Amino acid sequence: MRLISLLVSSLLVASSVPALAADEKVDLALVNKIRDEGTSRSKVMETLSVLTDEIGPRLTGSPALRKAGEWTQKQLSDWGLQNAQVESIAPFGRSWTLEKASMRMVAPGNLELVAIPKSWTPGTDGVKRGKAVYAKLETEEDLAKWKGKLNGVILFRDTPVATALHMTPDAKRYTDQDLNDIANMEFESGPARAPFDAAAFAKRQAFGKKLLPFLIEEKVIATVNASRGDDGTIFVQGGGSYKAGEDTGPAAFVMSAEHYNRIYRLLEKKKDVTLEVESVVNFGDEDPANSINVFAEIPGTDKKDEVVMLGGHLDSWHAGTGATDNAAGVAVAMEAVRMLKAIGFKPRRTIRIALWGGEEQGLLGSRHFINKYVASRAESNDPADKDVPSFMRRNTNPLVYKPLHGKISAYFNLDNGGGKIRGIYAENNAAAKAIFDTWLAPFHDLGAKTSTMKKTGSTDHVSFDAVGVPGFQFIQEPMDYFTRTHHTNIDVYDKVQKGDMMQASMIMASFIAHTANRDELIPRKPLPPEPAKR
Amino acid sequence: MRLISLLVSSLLVASSVPALAADEKVDLALVNKIRDEGTSRSKVMETLSVLTDEIGPRLTGSPALRKAGEWTQKQLSDWGLQNAQVESIAPFGRSWTLEKASMRMVAPGNLELVAIPKSWTPGTDGVKRGKAVYAKLETEEDLAKWKGKLNGVILFRDTPVATALHMTPDAKRYTDQDLNDIANMEFESGPARAPFDAAAFAKRQAFGKKLLPFLIEEKVIATVNASRGDDGTIFVQGGGSYKAGEDTGPAAFVMSAEHYNRIYRLLEKKKDVTLEVESVVNFGDEDPANSINVFAEIPGTDKKDEVVMLGGHLDSWHAGTGATDNAAGVAVAMEAVRMLKAIGFKPRRTIRIALWGGEEQGLLGSRHFINKYVASRAESNDPADKDVPSFMRRNTNPLVYKPLHGKISAYFNLDNGGGKIRGIYAENNAAAKAIFDTWLAPFHDLGAKTSTMKKTGSTDHVSFDAVGVPGFQFIQEPMDYFTRTHHTNIDVYDKVQKGDMMQASMIMASFIAHTANRDELIPRKPLPPEPAKR
Repeated sequence: MRLISLLVSSLLVASSVPALAADEKVDLALVNKIRDEGTSRSKVMETLSVLTDEIGPRLTGSPALRKAGEWTQKQLSDWGLQNAQVESIAPFGRSWTLEKASMRMVAPGNLELVAIPKSWTPGTDGVKRGKAVYAKLETEEDLAKWKGKLNGVILFRDTPVATALHMTPDAKRYTDQDLNDIANMEFESGPARAPFDAAAFAKRQAFGKKLLPFLIEEKVIATVNASRGDDGTIFVQGGGSYKAGEDTGPAAFVMSAEHYNRIYRLLEKKKDVTLEVESVVNFGDEDPANSINVFAEIPGTDKKDEVVMLGGHLDSWHAGTGATDNAAGVAVAMEAVRMLKAIGFKPRRTIRIALWGGEEQGLLGSRHFINKYVASRAESNDPADKDVPSFMRRNTNPLVYKPLHGKISAYFNLDNGGGKIRGIYAENNAAAKAIFDTWLAPFHDLGAKTSTMKKTGSTDHVSFDAVGVPGFQFIQEPMDYFTRTHHTNIDVYDKVQKGDMMQASMIMASFIAHTANRDELIPRKPLPPEPAKR
Repeated sequence: MRLISLLVSSLLVASSVPALAADEKVDLALVNKIRDEGTSRSKVMETLSVLTDEIGPRLTGSPALRKAGEWTQKQLSDWGLQNAQVESIAPFGRSWTLEKASMRMVAPGNLELVAIPKSWTPGTDGVKRGKAVYAKLETEEDLAKWKGKLNGVILFRDTPVATALHMTPDAKRYTDQDLNDIANMEFESGPARAPFDAAAFAKRQAFGKKLLPFLIEEKVIATVNASRGDDGTIFVQGGGSYKAGEDTGPAAFVMSAEHYNRIYRLLEKKKDVTLEVESVVNFGDEDPANSINVFAEIPGTDKKDEVVMLGGHLDSWHAGTGATDNAAGVAVAMEAVRMLKAIGFKPRRTIRIALWGGEEQGLLGSRHFINKYVASRAESNDPADKDVPSFMRRNTNPLVYKPLHGKISAYFNLDNGGGKIRGIYAENNAAAKAIFDTWLAPFHDLGAKTSTMKKTGSTDHVSFDAVGVPGFQFIQEPMDYFTRTHHTNIDVYDKVQKGDMMQASMIMASFIAHTANRDELIPRKPLPPEPAKR
């Protein structure tokens, strides 16, 4: 019911009267130019190759992200964009780069193991040998039980991961039925989810703070978690902590399911398993130049104080080269503005591309931008928020809107892999949806024809939507994003399809150009409600 | 036409009148016992785990194959089989075991590469650094062009491997339609294949003999081939040579497609790519105890001089643990005889299990057995065969049949992965097919109901069929054998499904028991024709 009432009120209170779909203009001459440039002279895969093959993974806070910032800034300038600049989002935290890492079994047989350190965990200080030991460490009783028994071991922390035959395809494109399901709203009528158990959460948090010092005290060489994924694909994110001063524990690896399970079975049979492990990491103090956003503009003309924004996130995890997450989105956004410059498009509003850092650590780059330029609250000094994780805090200071808040027509984001665009999530904005339906028309033949009132989360458009600025994410083909590439060692260039990238670039360019040149801003939903006072 | 005339003559000339299907007995009380033992007390996964998790890969000529021979011999004895013995199939060639191997990129960025040495290639004599260079070396002109330019490089030998989205499932079970297609014969009516080009083959062979000394002379650190496969799965077999005295060339690796392609793209952009590589191998003279077959028996009663055989191959490639190829077949054959002992089955004929070595190098173990005990030709001293690869030689000496030739009722093999049995290839033996149809009846509910006159190749039953002894291979679910496990680094325990292995064990046990106890031997096809005199 809340969604429906929002929808109705949005039609009534939006600051300008939303255009009806029938009135919305589509500049087909412009679309023709974009489609010609996008199909005949695309550079999107060249951009992708620089980001992935040459620069490689781009962890927030690492020199590689700085390098990616420098290169994208220069490339955007070279294409004729103006005001290309790199802006630090510091304070972020520690710098971390993986220099080398390997783990191998030396008894009962020799085997190079597929194992990759979690980011922000320390190195092993040379090649170390130790016995593999499985220990369940989930409670303080577990710690008491294992105290004094883990010296010099390599600690296996999980039970085996079930692997299964891949009887359905790893990769998928949406069928008409899938898109129909995405387009249609369904309201849940079942029982409410169990409420969040704050006490249990706090207990887990408190245990985590005891575990890392325990592992250090025990002189554990390294910990190993089992990865979901199989066939050589492993999912690896962060461990330790990127925040200065926080404990990182010992070296911490993620291992492929098949290798993990083999060692676990050997341990269950009481066989001695000896491993040799080494990781060399460059773990350092914060360098503000390594935690950045990048911006560049095509200045507007008669409405140049108003802005349309587009982007993706430049940072990535470290095990692959961050190709689908999210060099693909960055390359498409860059290609979109390159094409608009190349065809000589003169926008009424200023077009600003934003390439975010810190997305993987919680949309840090886009939130930094919003706080600094769009809308922010004074820091909470509510004692109830002390020692509570950030997502559980409730800042009841009022949201203060800055001048740019009313000037951003919309932000368009691309961050769901390397698949082509099949439509757009309208984020419960019926007026925007009607406009987008019109703009999608000249791309129906490329498979993009679905809009949905549904909201989608987990990436940088959310930072805009949260303060009432229209922020949108496109619907993309799922491909093998969630099975093979998202936060894995296989998130690499070869997983991105050229034709999909070309299609996405053309649609993004067209949406940006149409947003830049329509008479009114994209209509807005009502402002989000303020949090209730305590 | 040849197939049809063979079929008719087989019905006329077989040494005993084949039983019609309607007459063939199925001992359902026996099937009951087998199904009870096989479902309630299966040990097949325990056997598989010892072979794969504990012993690991079992390359022919390696100490691991010797260890596997010792363990299987003891295990079969412990289960009550008699005459358990290990028999050398030497001369085979050099012993080779991989101790450690790694390759990583150190410029333009750091990356641990998925790269595994081919078997029977030498180590790198320590950690070596070198530039990656791509060179096409396919002709003597290529060698002349690159002479003097490859000192200390790591040589990339292939163009990139195309990778594709996995839009169909990696793993598959046969549908009824698939099985119908397998069951029905189709004779090709199209144009004949291009005849074998002996001259071109000889030229390729001659070039190969020049290439390896060239690479050594150039002081190439290592060569790298691109693997088919993706997502972390790589296909690795042999390189160099296992034959004493033959050239091996430098260290030779296979690299994952995604990593190979990244480096290739960097080289195309004229970027310097520096790699660090190390392989340590134990490469030694032949030890006859490392190249073996294993046999064990359940002695027969009133027909104990006659034999029914079953088996799979004990050897494997080295990158995984040889689970689907072919610890699975070995474990099923072992489980079949274990069950027959456990239920107190008294065979009329002797049941002999055979676990072969050297299958991956050309059915060496089963051919050794056939030559030594069943049928052989005197060594050819035809000058036309000199310096010609073995498969092109034509030994026109007469096949001499030994006493066992007439005593082996049939050999049943299992070597197409870890999938359950869906039926059996009758190898163009209509009389056998009719019998098998009857024996499959009590296993229709387990999915095994297809027999086909089709022949299938590439494994050890071929050695029997080639000399006129009935040899059969079961039809198995394809699963992900050819996409993920066959000769890959992912050929490991977790890829084998327990339910499939239990089913296969029960069917193999029943076929063996029924072959052992029927009144007559399995009917034979006409003897294979002698090769024409030159």
